[in-house]
Amino acid sequence: MSALLKNSQNGHLPASARIPAIARPFVSDRAMKTLDLVEKFVEEECIPADAVFQRQIGETTEERFSSHPSVLEDLKSKAKKLGLWNLFLPKNHFKEGAGFSNLEYGLMAEYLGKSMTASEATNCAAPDTGNMEVLAKYGNEAQKRKWLDPLLSGDIRSAFLMTEPQVASSDATNIELLIQRDGNDYVLNGEKWWSSGAGDPRCKIYIVLGKTDPYNKEKYKQQSVILVPHDTPGITIHRMLSVLGYDDAPHGHGHISFNNVRVPASNMVLGEGRGFEIIQGRLGPGRIHHAMRSVGAAEKALEWFLARLNDPSKTPFGEQLHKHGIMLDRIARSRIEIDAARLMVLNAAIKIDESNAKGALKEIAEVKVLVPTMNLTIIDRAIQAYGGAGVCQDTPLAYMYALGRTMRLVDGPDEVHILQLGKNENKRGPAHLARIDAQIKKGEELLKQYGIKIKDPLQLNRVSGNSSKL
Amino acid sequence: MSALLKNSQNGHLPASARIPAIARPFVSDRAMKTLDLVEKFVEEECIPADAVFQRQIGETTEERFSSHPSVLEDLKSKAKKLGLWNLFLPKNHFKEGAGFSNLEYGLMAEYLGKSMTASEATNCAAPDTGNMEVLAKYGNEAQKRKWLDPLLSGDIRSAFLMTEPQVASSDATNIELLIQRDGNDYVLNGEKWWSSGAGDPRCKIYIVLGKTDPYNKEKYKQQSVILVPHDTPGITIHRMLSVLGYDDAPHGHGHISFNNVRVPASNMVLGEGRGFEIIQGRLGPGRIHHAMRSVGAAEKALEWFLARLNDPSKTPFGEQLHKHGIMLDRIARSRIEIDAARLMVLNAAIKIDESNAKGALKEIAEVKVLVPTMNLTIIDRAIQAYGGAGVCQDTPLAYMYALGRTMRLVDGPDEVHILQLGKNENKRGPAHLARIDAQIKKGEELLKQYGIKIKDPLQLNRVSGNSSKL
Amino acid sequence: MSALLKNSQNGHLPASARIPAIARPFVSDRAMKTLDLVEKFVEEECIPADAVFQRQIGETTEERFSSHPSVLEDLKSKAKKLGLWNLFLPKNHFKEGAGFSNLEYGLMAEYLGKSMTASEATNCAAPDTGNMEVLAKYGNEAQKRKWLDPLLSGDIRSAFLMTEPQVASSDATNIELLIQRDGNDYVLNGEKWWSSGAGDPRCKIYIVLGKTDPYNKEKYKQQSVILVPHDTPGITIHRMLSVLGYDDAPHGHGHISFNNVRVPASNMVLGEGRGFEIIQGRLGPGRIHHAMRSVGAAEKALEWFLARLNDPSKTPFGEQLHKHGIMLDRIARSRIEIDAARLMVLNAAIKIDESNAKGALKEIAEVKVLVPTMNLTIIDRAIQAYGGAGVCQDTPLAYMYALGRTMRLVDGPDEVHILQLGKNENKRGPAHLARIDAQIKKGEELLKQYGIKIKDPLQLNRVSGNSSKL
Amino acid sequence: MSALLKNSQNGHLPASARIPAIARPFVSDRAMKTLDLVEKFVEEECIPADAVFQRQIGETTEERFSSHPSVLEDLKSKAKKLGLWNLFLPKNHFKEGAGFSNLEYGLMAEYLGKSMTASEATNCAAPDTGNMEVLAKYGNEAQKRKWLDPLLSGDIRSAFLMTEPQVASSDATNIELLIQRDGNDYVLNGEKWWSSGAGDPRCKIYIVLGKTDPYNKEKYKQQSVILVPHDTPGITIHRMLSVLGYDDAPHGHGHISFNNVRVPASNMVLGEGRGFEIIQGRLGPGRIHHAMRSVGAAEKALEWFLARLNDPSKTPFGEQLHKHGIMLDRIARSRIEIDAARLMVLNAAIKIDESNAKGALKEIAEVKVLVPTMNLTIIDRAIQAYGGAGVCQDTPLAYMYALGRTMRLVDGPDEVHILQLGKNENKRGPAHLARIDAQIKKGEELLKQYGIKIKDPLQLNRVSGNSSKL
Repeated sequence: MSALLKNSQNGHLPASARIPAIARPFVSDRAMKTLDLVEKFVEEECIPADAVFQRQIGETTEERFSSHPSVLEDLKSKAKKLGLWNLFLPKNHFKEGAGFSNLEYGLMAEYLGKSMTASEATNCAAPDTGNMEVLAKYGNEAQKRKWLDPLLSGDIRSAFLMTEPQVASSDATNIELLIQRDGNDYVLNGEKWWSSGAGDPRCKIYIVLGKTDPYNKEKYKQQSVILVPHDTPGITIHRMLSVLGYDDAPHGHGHISFNNVRVPASNMVLGEGRGFEIIQGRLGPGRIHHAMRSVGAAEKALEWFLARLNDPSKTPFGEQLHKHGIMLDRIARSRIEIDAARLMVLNAAIKIDESNAKGALKEIAEVKVLVPTMNLTIIDRAIQAYGGAGVCQDTPLAYMYALGRTMRLVDGPDEVHILQLGKNENKRGPAHLARIDAQIKKGEELLKQYGIKIKDPLQLNRVSGNSSKL
Repeated sequence: MSALLKNSQNGHLPASARIPAIARPFVSDRAMKTLDLVEKFVEEECIPADAVFQRQIGETTEERFSSHPSVLEDLKSKAKKLGLWNLFLPKNHFKEGAGFSNLEYGLMAEYLGKSMTASEATNCAAPDTGNMEVLAKYGNEAQKRKWLDPLLSGDIRSAFLMTEPQVASSDATNIELLIQRDGNDYVLNGEKWWSSGAGDPRCKIYIVLGKTDPYNKEKYKQQSVILVPHDTPGITIHRMLSVLGYDDAPHGHGHISFNNVRVPASNMVLGEGRGFEIIQGRLGPGRIHHAMRSVGAAEKALEWFLARLNDPSKTPFGEQLHKHGIMLDRIARSRIEIDAARLMVLNAAIKIDESNAKGALKEIAEVKVLVPTMNLTIIDRAIQAYGGAGVCQDTPLAYMYALGRTMRLVDGPDEVHILQLGKNENKRGPAHLARIDAQIKKGEELLKQYGIKIKDPLQLNRVSGNSSKL
Repeated sequence: MSALLKNSQNGHLPASARIPAIARPFVSDRAMKTLDLVEKFVEEECIPADAVFQRQIGETTEERFSSHPSVLEDLKSKAKKLGLWNLFLPKNHFKEGAGFSNLEYGLMAEYLGKSMTASEATNCAAPDTGNMEVLAKYGNEAQKRKWLDPLLSGDIRSAFLMTEPQVASSDATNIELLIQRDGNDYVLNGEKWWSSGAGDPRCKIYIVLGKTDPYNKEKYKQQSVILVPHDTPGITIHRMLSVLGYDDAPHGHGHISFNNVRVPASNMVLGEGRGFEIIQGRLGPGRIHHAMRSVGAAEKALEWFLARLNDPSKTPFGEQLHKHGIMLDRIARSRIEIDAARLMVLNAAIKIDESNAKGALKEIAEVKVLVPTMNLTIIDRAIQAYGGAGVCQDTPLAYMYALGRTMRLVDGPDEVHILQLGKNENKRGPAHLARIDAQIKKGEELLKQYGIKIKDPLQLNRVSGNSSKL
Repeated sequence: MSALLKNSQNGHLPASARIPAIARPFVSDRAMKTLDLVEKFVEEECIPADAVFQRQIGETTEERFSSHPSVLEDLKSKAKKLGLWNLFLPKNHFKEGAGFSNLEYGLMAEYLGKSMTASEATNCAAPDTGNMEVLAKYGNEAQKRKWLDPLLSGDIRSAFLMTEPQVASSDATNIELLIQRDGNDYVLNGEKWWSSGAGDPRCKIYIVLGKTDPYNKEKYKQQSVILVPHDTPGITIHRMLSVLGYDDAPHGHGHISFNNVRVPASNMVLGEGRGFEIIQGRLGPGRIHHAMRSVGAAEKALEWFLARLNDPSKTPFGEQLHKHGIMLDRIARSRIEIDAARLMVLNAAIKIDESNAKGALKEIAEVKVLVPTMNLTIIDRAIQAYGGAGVCQDTPLAYMYALGRTMRLVDGPDEVHILQLGKNENKRGPAHLARIDAQIKKGEELLKQYGIKIKDPLQLNRVSGNSSKL
């Protein structure tokens, strides 16, 4: 047994043994074994390789966005040999994947979230995962052979172009990029940003959301999704956006313009006006992936936090940090918050497995709001325990914070999901009001039956607002 | 179908259909049916009866603590007929109960938590539940027949006397009440408070924790548990303690002194020095009950909150409350927080079902800390939406807040559990430190293998605190 | 020197020496002396008398709302002798008071807020204070002689009737009580609640806000304020409202109906349609009083918290509470939060002193939102440190919490003030947008001047949303 | 009048008119005028110049830390001409400065905090400010002429080397760098990091804290401060530390080792063993500067937040952001939090002005804890409103967040100050306990005097823990 896992086991059981009791009935034996393998691969191979990955990228912007770190290809080879490949494609919908449920992959994604390289090493990195799902689910045969196959084999990468700088594009009805039919072609004009992955030299295909029918009265029929090869004339990548000072090279977040970009009509996915339907289907599992990687990040932050508390050289006020009650308080709260968040994600994954993303709308929205803030809270606590080491390059925490911060924004900011959730929940309000009124009325009747004269009839039907005036 | 449930169903599905997906494999069909019956009983019978209960108690302290509201006996009869009796006794440990698991009863307890009368109506009220468990698990035959049987039938009630005013008694080693052997008797001297239930005229038996061997070096062998009939000479109930202005009559929280209180030696439970063992065993399921009732209270608060948002007569700034974004924000956050807390409690219940309270130590502690604060947060939001109606007798919210506030204190304040949880979690710290160090070292080796010269060897072994001086 | 103050001085300096440095230029020597006298009176006379006050009230509702605790009259005599009487009436507006500014009285009100009896003992209790201000400022001579004089001398008490149960009455335009002219009389019909002070047998006069002109298009001209003697036929006090289980007897919070209540036209204050103007003027200083009393309550809670930390009999985990880092953390945070809140209130008081309530609109709203939540946070921490003693009658904390909770609701819930504050602040938004745009443009020009070619013109005018399409 | 200020004035008054009322008595007319000039200089000159500054630095690490942006020298010339130079040196201690109090400069520092270049442009940038104070206060004539003069004229820059990587160096007693006497020299050995400013090619002098007497029993006599020219042999700058992805070039945060670094004995400041005294004196005003710049940053974040709310192109859910209640809620809370923090800093500055840093220990610690978290909260809210634009280079928010985050760590992490504050506050605990006991006892006596028999003597002396057993 390797030193790393041995160290690991002094402190805790293998991944499969740490699955929450409530989730176990949903995990097959094969998934348990793979899960342990994923943990081993991440802890022993990927995390150490992260140090190499970061340094193989280079220094200038130009270098950084033309680099192709060899250590990543080495990890991919290892992962393929171990059978840790395309783990994310859910078994009930796709035959192309490794045959796991969303829940089972969710458990694995937690571990992938602990390393910068692990997701790509196992071909489970966003946005490729969502893009592969789109192609597998909605693409026609030609589209699948041309783009899905090389994505599945990890030979190319892809980007999903939805967000636009001028509008509040978390609401897809605001999107402005135009896709106009012209003979056998479509012509695209507009601007996209936060096109994640577009910086990578291996990114060959853009899946683009735009409007084919911007004046359609049914505003969810205006959008379409179309495939655009990265080197189509008229495309300009203007710049890469940074995230709290990090450029995420070579992946990157592109700001891209489309100026009369022409692609064959056969590149349309599913048909004109089906764009909204496609992005809806795409988002559910992806949010589970993001969420579970964030749970993994939070868990890693807590591990680093705990490591710091036990660093014998750090003794403020004459005592090691784990002797300070305020630190133990934060450890305990972090433990609780991570565990609660994980259960929420796993429950949402099961809901998707049992029906689909639409059937798990509430659960996914809850997770989308809950997990990123939890993750940031815990990373921030760990940073604080490390002091200067926490914000600089000597720990993974600062970068994890930056990455985690974007999770409150990608796929729509928290507020969009909160508001939607609130509105949906509010639909139950009138029924609650009616039931409470009925209970109050029944209470009044009971009072009479029991011979109790109430001093004050006012107090009983107040809440409904229907009280007769005195 | 009754009006109440019909109203209810406009807004939501029956209880069994709302069990979180992840918990369903653990719930039998019989439990599902009983759960729906519990919901119906609570919503249609108990909540309306609460209004009668409150008014049957009386006004002066003397009246209030000698009252025996007839509406409660009526509810008990109904509950017995419906088979909703002693639901709490877990099937894997006791034959006397209704045959449900802790998880299954937990789901039911959520609904019991919505009414002031429901728990007692179904003979599932604390502290009787824990006391019945103690007697069933640790009592001898004579003790069972004399005290367990009438408790199981709902003919008498009981109190558990642990907390003491002079010491930090959440730590049982601080307890001071003396239990001294004297011939065939034990003689008790000391003081207890927060003896919940001691105010009820039907409370016939006290289960008392004290010290038989206060100087034993093994400090968890000092304690014993003994049975003391409420009318034993030398017992004085000095007063009833209030909770934020509520006296919880007729139940009450007594402040009691023991002055040479003499009971037969046969009243000792399990044997001298077994007290700590008994209270440990007693607390696990009880915390699940408390927690799930709190989840129910939070859910009820949210329902009232939603009812208020849809009250057509409340239109600050010209719009109904559900049009105000800040209100929908709070609704959504409340939804998330309740759902997360519920999953944590259910998972803890499953851990108890699979092993026992000791095997679920971490999970129970997490729930003990998480749930009460969640509950208070949500009740407080609902109060705020109701304005003056929220803090007064016109809504159940103010009393729910008071009751909920005590949940951060009973069975030890949050801080005790937080600290314990933190210390336990910290045990994993050295292993994390070692693993992280090993990963950094492996990273350094990989850098060499990939031919990368690191500018600065300092940065890699910093976190371990083992860096050689420059 | 008395034992109490001596004890006090071991721990801290007298009140005048603890005035924040930044506030000192605004405090006269006379005010400093009176402040120290107020502190001494409250700590040595009022707080001990609180115990008597609570027990002189009685037990049944009837007793409690007909009681007139003699200890209070004794305190009033003492206060008058000490010159601690009507301290609240600001010197720049009223000759009837003790001649202090709002800031100076604010400093004193902090100490009054530490006792249940101190405010009334010094004739500085709400709602009389606001009512006296109304009468002194807006009343005619006859009204002043009849009602202001006995209020100033402490012979009678008063109530202010604004809140109504059916509507969101924090918005005065929603008020429904009708005041109709009929010959030489006005006739009132409607319903009020949270009529604080109406329970006291000495409460002789109601100052009532209603509508004389409900269909006036200028919706702030619809309201009027009128004086109604408490014993006018047609008035029914239906019940007293409780606050988290407390009835606040004998003061009380009444639910009152008006059924053809007839008063002479001369009881109108200032004239028909001037009601909104009156309540606006009334609220400013009153909010400072509430806020400073809350600051005092928070300070008292912190003192009790600190006392608990140093109670040698409380040693959880084998150490006194002040050895627990988590407790010191809460102490320190409480210290900061109180001090920040106090400065905000004092600054608001100075703004009122320099102009009037209208000129301090922002500052008063800030204080209205900030202080009550701060106060509750700190009381809650103290409660938690006391455990069971914190929620029951053995400490003043539970009642202080209940009282403090209402401060988030009286004079409009937090949300109303938050929203108003947000809207006012937002008025500055367009100017900020314009300035930021201009700065970006100037930045672009500078870049040219310095010969720097920007790769990407997109990034500079993004925020204004005015970017030309690519 | 310039366009920028005109825009500005639509939205708000000039800086001098926005000084909180409570602070005005402390601000001279000259300071008011200078304050308005600072605002104008920052808004019109510095903020636009920030764009140039960022681009003049270069791309590779080597470029970035050898750059000397000409725009900064241009700003410095302008500032000198305007008389905006060395504003920070408090008039009551130093003749070399511009003659303002700490309070007055604090008000100016708020505006400097809104720009990346303003502090250095006015020669008010850390760590030079603290270093100049050290030299002016503790340096001898030779030291002043050699280092203070060129610092005052802005010709060179400086660094303060205190923090060490291996130890918890926020506690100065843990510091390990050795300063050993050897003939007429001192020889330094050890390691420092977070040596801010050490990256700048113009940084010529290090002020180094180390130990001359590590085994002295008086542990605050072990430390000394010594002047070390940056190019002394034996000094190696190993690398620059990043802050959440930013390198802060050319300033930078160095990781530096000292290997037999030899300087003349005359470089010792004040004398051996005086190091602790020096750093204590240095920290007070510096913390006010940091805090007020953070207040300015928060104010700027709020301005950007407000600008976004009024961006007509951002209309999620069909409405501009300022129509969303949740956004107005955050605006209002931000307004309150900034205003409260500002008052706290100003009050602390006055305390320093009235005595010195030691006399303002509590106030400075409060500010040190309160302000950075406030600042981060508000920046984070603004980021969230901007979505992707908030975390990337298109707004100043992301960098402001990174900078703000370090403020919770520099000069000791929050926790150190919290704990110290808590411990100091706790010293008042025994006096509070004694006073409360005395009040309870006096209450008991009063009860007897008033003829009230208390049911239960238990309840009155509980809090002291001194109750006699029953």
